[in-house]
Amino acid sequence: PSVSATRASKFQAEKPCKRMVLYYHDKLFDGTEKDKANATSATAANASKLSDTNFGMLVVFNDPITIDDKFHSPPVARAQGFYFYDRKDTYTAWFAYTLVFNSSEHKGTLNIMGADLMTEKTRDLSVVGGTGDFFMARGIATFQTDTFQGLYYFRLKMDIKLYECY
Amino acid sequence: PSVSATRASKFQAEKPCKRMVLYYHDKLFDGTEKDKANATSATAANASKLSDTNFGMLVVFNDPITIDDKFHSPPVARAQGFYFYDRKDTYTAWFAYTLVFNSSEHKGTLNIMGADLMTEKTRDLSVVGGTGDFFMARGIATFQTDTFQGLYYFRLKMDIKLYECY
Amino acid sequence: PSVSATRASKFQAEKPCKRMVLYYHDKLFDGTEKDKANATSATAANASKLSDTNFGMLVVFNDPITIDDKFHSPPVARAQGFYFYDRKDTYTAWFAYTLVFNSSEHKGTLNIMGADLMTEKTRDLSVVGGTGDFFMARGIATFQTDTFQGLYYFRLKMDIKLYECY
Repeated sequence: PSVSATRASKFQAEKPCKRMVLYYHDKLFDGTEKDKANATSATAANASKLSDTNFGMLVVFNDPITIDDKFHSPPVARAQGFYFYDRKDTYTAWFAYTLVFNSSEHKGTLNIMGADLMTEKTRDLSVVGGTGDFFMARGIATFQTDTFQGLYYFRLKMDIKLYECY
Repeated sequence: PSVSATRASKFQAEKPCKRMVLYYHDKLFDGTEKDKANATSATAANASKLSDTNFGMLVVFNDPITIDDKFHSPPVARAQGFYFYDRKDTYTAWFAYTLVFNSSEHKGTLNIMGADLMTEKTRDLSVVGGTGDFFMARGIATFQTDTFQGLYYFRLKMDIKLYECY
Repeated sequence: PSVSATRASKFQAEKPCKRMVLYYHDKLFDGTEKDKANATSATAANASKLSDTNFGMLVVFNDPITIDDKFHSPPVARAQGFYFYDRKDTYTAWFAYTLVFNSSEHKGTLNIMGADLMTEKTRDLSVVGGTGDFFMARGIATFQTDTFQGLYYFRLKMDIKLYECY
């Protein structure tokens, strides 16, 4: 009997008003001088001693976003934010970040937060707001691990679906 | 004269479209070997020297959520996220986290952020998004301190009220 | 063809349903005894060695909000949250925080997150939720650097525009 209930059924039945499939590349700084040029993220807080799964390790990132899975493709956006690991018996993480677009196609930002349940094939985070071309947007960001090489490189496929576009 | 103004009066007069009362248990790791099994959270950044109220201390958690106030009741969800202390003359905190539901009753997540003004009897945080069964949800999470034992255990009653359900 | 598309054009053409211009003062603790009274924020995680632009430095704040640009004016709100620096070749930051109002004029909170692209004259963050007088609000917070004195004091003009008011 609420306004939102009415909107609900409509949204879920519909396609997103905007969809973008993007690749996120995280190259964690390994502490060496020669990695400074390539690295796109750095550890801000070390893992706790609670487990050997990096529980509590917090990483700040400024990562390139590309439309294919190549690290050296021209970025269409940057992802600026942080993640931390938060599980004792396996790896899961939690993300909050901004996709910053500054290209001929899009100018503006999308703000995203949620759990990255890495043991699931896909997992959904929330797009909680947007600015510029994405003024007041909301939606879902579906993560899929595309590849990883130990702790120091991983790539996520981010399927961004906006259901509220203004 | 805006669309939102119209929605405003409706929402506030109405009941939530979904409501859940949950208990959140935080057992902070005390650094000892024997606490590793029980602890559900760990310090990622130590308190600063600005005050003796833990200002700047940041804790990452993966906490059980139960429908009663018993730590050992079967969890109906996990709360994955972090909090930090942020006041000089008393204790207040700030939370951002995801409620992860994976039961027969609910599958999906709710994303929540806001200030935990611990000196108030109740305080409201924002539910800023949801996924799965809680697709695109928004609402209010009202915190109430149920109990605490020093720094290493506390329990919050979380009254989750969704006002936008899809 | 969606409900949101219809709302879109309306919102963007309209004025905000609520607007507030506020000043945010951040006085970072310098570690000395005599700064403890004045300081309003403290470093929770030190900068990484990735760059000399504070990449990874994380600051927890409880900052006064005033309606003019004077640090010692009576605060109309507090901003409780954190920021971190996240760029290698210059300074940019990322913020998540709550504006806590507790005055005769306003009681309630606004929750805000997004990138502070400090090299831009103005930059937009998302107001993702609100409580109390700002029940369920959403909007845009436009930051402008008003002044800064090295690392230890800066002042932002925050132009808060709500487009969803309830």
